Formats: sequence, structure tokens, C-alpha cells
Amino acid sequence: MPDVRLPVVQPRDVGQPPIFEKIAILGLGLIGGSIALAARQIWPSGLVIAVDSKDVLEQAMVKHAIDVAADEPYVIGEADLVILAAPVRQNLELLAQLDEYVEKDAVVTDVGSTKRAVVEAARALPSRFTFVGGHPMGGAARGGFEAARADLFKGRPWIFTPHTDGSRETLEKLFAFASATGAVPKAMGAAEHDRLLAFLSHLPQLTGSALMAAIGAAAGEALPLAGRGLVDTTRLAASPSRIWQDIAATNGDQIRPALEALIARLTELRDGLEDGAVIERLFDDANRWREKLMEGREL
Amino acid sequence: MPDVRLPVVQPRDVGQPPIFEKIAILGLGLIGGSIALAARQIWPSGLVIAVDSKDVLEQAMVKHAIDVAADEPYVIGEADLVILAAPVRQNLELLAQLDEYVEKDAVVTDVGSTKRAVVEAARALPSRFTFVGGHPMGGAARGGFEAARADLFKGRPWIFTPHTDGSRETLEKLFAFASATGAVPKAMGAAEHDRLLAFLSHLPQLTGSALMAAIGAAAGEALPLAGRGLVDTTRLAASPSRIWQDIAATNGDQIRPALEALIARLTELRDGLEDGAVIERLFDDANRWREKLMEGREL
Repeated sequence: MPDVRLPVVQPRDVGQPPIFEKIAILGLGLIGGSIALAARQIWPSGLVIAVDSKDVLEQAMVKHAIDVAADEPYVIGEADLVILAAPVRQNLELLAQLDEYVEKDAVVTDVGSTKRAVVEAARALPSRFTFVGGHPMGGAARGGFEAARADLFKGRPWIFTPHTDGSRETLEKLFAFASATGAVPKAMGAAEHDRLLAFLSHLPQLTGSALMAAIGAAAGEALPLAGRGLVDTTRLAASPSRIWQDIAATNGDQIRPALEALIARLTELRDGLEDGAVIERLFDDANRWREKLMEGREL
Repeated sequence: MPDVRLPVVQPRDVGQPPIFEKIAILGLGLIGGSIALAARQIWPSGLVIAVDSKDVLEQAMVKHAIDVAADEPYVIGEADLVILAAPVRQNLELLAQLDEYVEKDAVVTDVGSTKRAVVEAARALPSRFTFVGGHPMGGAARGGFEAARADLFKGRPWIFTPHTDGSRETLEKLFAFASATGAVPKAMGAAEHDRLLAFLSHLPQLTGSALMAAIGAAAGEALPLAGRGLVDTTRLAASPSRIWQDIAATNGDQIRPALEALIARLTELRDGLEDGAVIERLFDDANRWREKLMEGREL
């Protein structure tokens, strides 16, 4: 047998065969934009179709993130994968328009931070669409296409929330898609996702914003005196309100008990500041969970 | 006139003339240890006397941070500057012992994170001591001498809280001392310091700990799924409880309203999650104060 390990170079078609031939991304923010950049890099022979406002599309064209673009969904007719990457409630509206714009069978997923609402709405899709909710958990200090990066998902979980028995094959394709971007795909139920994310993501965000607002109102011009502790603790306070309005509105029943749990801890502290045992117990708990959080993570 | 700009090199006495000849540091943690390292570097002809447990003193000796050391204060008799660098309530006890151990006139300062208690206690010192409270606001992710660095204070505020009219000359010397370490010295009243720090430092710390404890209890083994947002927001949750028991106990009346202010914001959020205007107002506030916080700061 000859040694066939040398790579076969095909000048016009390098890279892996695409898992999906024509990917339509609706919304080129941090997540949608990063998926576009990753897809173009991984599957140069595939097509990336994007829908967003004209100025965002121009930026994306300059960065070679997309092939076909328009500010209305009429360009997505041929897509075999549709990714809803707008804020959650806008994704719900887009979902209702897919039958009108997409001409063939297609896999549909989304990248929203809450899953029950979109999974529920997807039940109304015609049967030629297979919907599996998704949530790539890559984050960055800033949002928008300007912050998008092809490697945003590297090493980060990408959660999928399959809700029908018939979606196994689709789930496998989406797992392969997510893995190709460097993400670590996981499957769980939409309700479990929403409960977990209320604590892991929504509570820290709302706390960071509330803390910054409370401290700013009290400290005002003295803020620059603060040390790195406050700077780190309030990094999320720079997040834009728009996507968070949708997250809060579609996950209120899960975020509310998370807020209650924090308020209970803060109230216990307020009433026990002079009681060393109260402080010690809280810090011991916090130390232990912080260690768990950092397990296997680089600082 | 000859050009006298060339430096005069004195092989056995390089560096600036010491502002204080014999500095006694009681407690070689992150702050006390960093002051020792800085002082030895800036004023090699001066003497650094340290009091701490034997194992800490050994580490400090290995790093050439100190000249004279003991685990009891009998070594500080000759000091012209005494720095109380133990946890706040231990500093109060040390203050009461100074008359016994220090033989001559001396300037006394501390590095604690609350100032009213120590300033009040210092009023009982014999008149040969001049006390000015201090708070160098250098921080690090970890405490203890292992984390001490000569440049910990570079560019950070070092607040002094003079409380008698007779301390102007001493304040000037302490300002010069702080400036020499790279810190930016500032003066304010002890009450103003304690009110401000309750918001700028004590509230973020307690919130970081409470948030980590609440999230850990709810998410448990799923914690590693969390993103960088949670990691940053809870960095302070690694802080040790010991120094915070003292801070909470000596600044409770100021920390309590700070906790109340945060609880009020979180409660408003809890009751308005589905109201876009509530989220928008909070995020706009937070965005604005976050920008103020970051003014002129490197990310």
C-alpha cells in the first residue's frame, strides 16, 4: 500500500465538507457574528447567509464573515440550517415567519439565553422544519458584531435542548457543528436549562448591574478610588439592557427565586454583621463554591 | 558653578535618605509584607522591624523583607514609625500595648479597612505618640505574605485620616512615605472614609461572597458550566473570613445601609422582571456608573 497520509490539496475547496451547505444567520451580534466567522473559516465551501441591518452587514462583509446578505429575510430561502441569533423575543417573531421565507426542509436552532419560550413557540412550525433550541455559552465584555471572534466558543459549553424524539439525527448534526467551532456540546431539557441559567448567568448579570447602580448612586465622584475588587465584581454592569429585557421577561419565574436566594443571604448578613459566626459561615461557603467554580479553569 | 547633576554614589548607603529610620510593622500579611518589601527597597539604610508568627517571619527573612524580627513586640522599642498591619480588632489590642513596648517618641499609623474604631482608640495613646490612621488601598486576589509585592501600592490611593490639628507635620511625612511606595496619598475624615468604603469595598466583597454561596447552593455540580461573567463577579468570594469579621464588626452601621441599598435594587428587579422599563432604567444607571468607574483605568 502506498503511504496516503499526505494531504490532498484542493485549491478551491479546502477545509472539511460542510455539515450544512447553506447556513442562514438571523442577527449578527456577538454570537451570530462569531458563528458566521467560525463557519466561513471551518467550511469555506459552504455558504453563510446573513440578515441584519445594513451597517452591521457592511462590517461583516469587510471582515469576510458572510457570503450573502440582506436586511430582510427574503435571502434565506435555500438555507438548510437557520440560526435565530437576535434577542429572544425577536427570535420568537422570526420563528413565526420561517414558513414564509424558507422554501425547503431545514434544521432550525437559536442561540438565546432562555429556552422554554422558544421551544414552546417552535411547536407551531410546519413539519418540514426540525427545531432544536441551542445556547452557545461564549461571552465577551462587549456585545455586537465588533466583538465577534471565530474562536469565541472554544472550550465553552454549547447547550442544546431537544424536545421531540424525532430530533436525534438533527441533534447529532448540531453537536458536530458546535464541536467544529471548538465548543463542548451538551444536551439538557429546556426547563433544566432555564433554571440553571437563572443562577449561573442571569443572577450574576442582574447583581452586577444592581450593585454598580447602588454604589454609583452613593459614591458618585469618588468611584475612581475603588480598587480591582469593585472593577471585577461589576464588569457585567457594562452589558446592554436590550437583550436582558428579553431574558428577564422570558425567564422571570426562574430568575425570581434566584434573586430571592441572594436577597435572603444579604438580609442574613445585614442582621448579623457584628456576629463573627455569620460572616465565617458565609465566607466558608463562598470559599468552597468558588474553588468548585474554578476547578480546571485558568485564572 | 560646576554641573552637579551627576548622582553621588555611596556604595554602603544607596537610595533615598529614610523618612523614618526604624519602621516597626506589626503583622506581615499582604499589606504589612508589601510595605516591608517596599521600604527595604526604597530605603536600604533604614531598619525594618517585624512582628508576626515565626513561620511568616521566616518567609520574610528568606525574601529579605525585614531586618529584625520576633513573634512578640519587645523588638519595637527603638521604632520611630509603628505600622499596625494586623486585622482591625487585633490592631486595637496592639495599640493599647504600644506604651509598654515603644521607648521613644513615635509616629503610629495603621492599614486597616475601617478607620473610626482605631482613630477613637488612638485618643488614649500617651502624647509622645502621634497617631494618623491610614488605609493603603492595594489589593490582590490572595492575602498573606506569600502574595506581598513591593509594587502593590503603585498608582493606588493611600488614604490617611488625620483627626487632630497637631498632626500636620506627621501627615506630611506619611504622605511622603506613601508617595515613595508609588501610592497616591489622600486625606479625609475617618467617618467619611468608613461611609465611602462601605460602598466601594465592603459591599462588593459581601455581595461577591453572598452571590457565590447562593449560586453554589443552587447549581452545585453544574458550576463548571458557568462563564466568565460569574467567574469575575465572584472573584472576591475567595477572600478569607478573618479580616472581614473585623471589618463587618467595626463598620456595621455603614455597611448596613449599603446592603439595604442593594437589597432595594434587587427587590425592585424581582418585582419588575417582566417590565422592560425597570430593566432599562437599571442597566442605563449601571452602564453610566461603570463608565465613571473605568475612567482613566486600564482594563
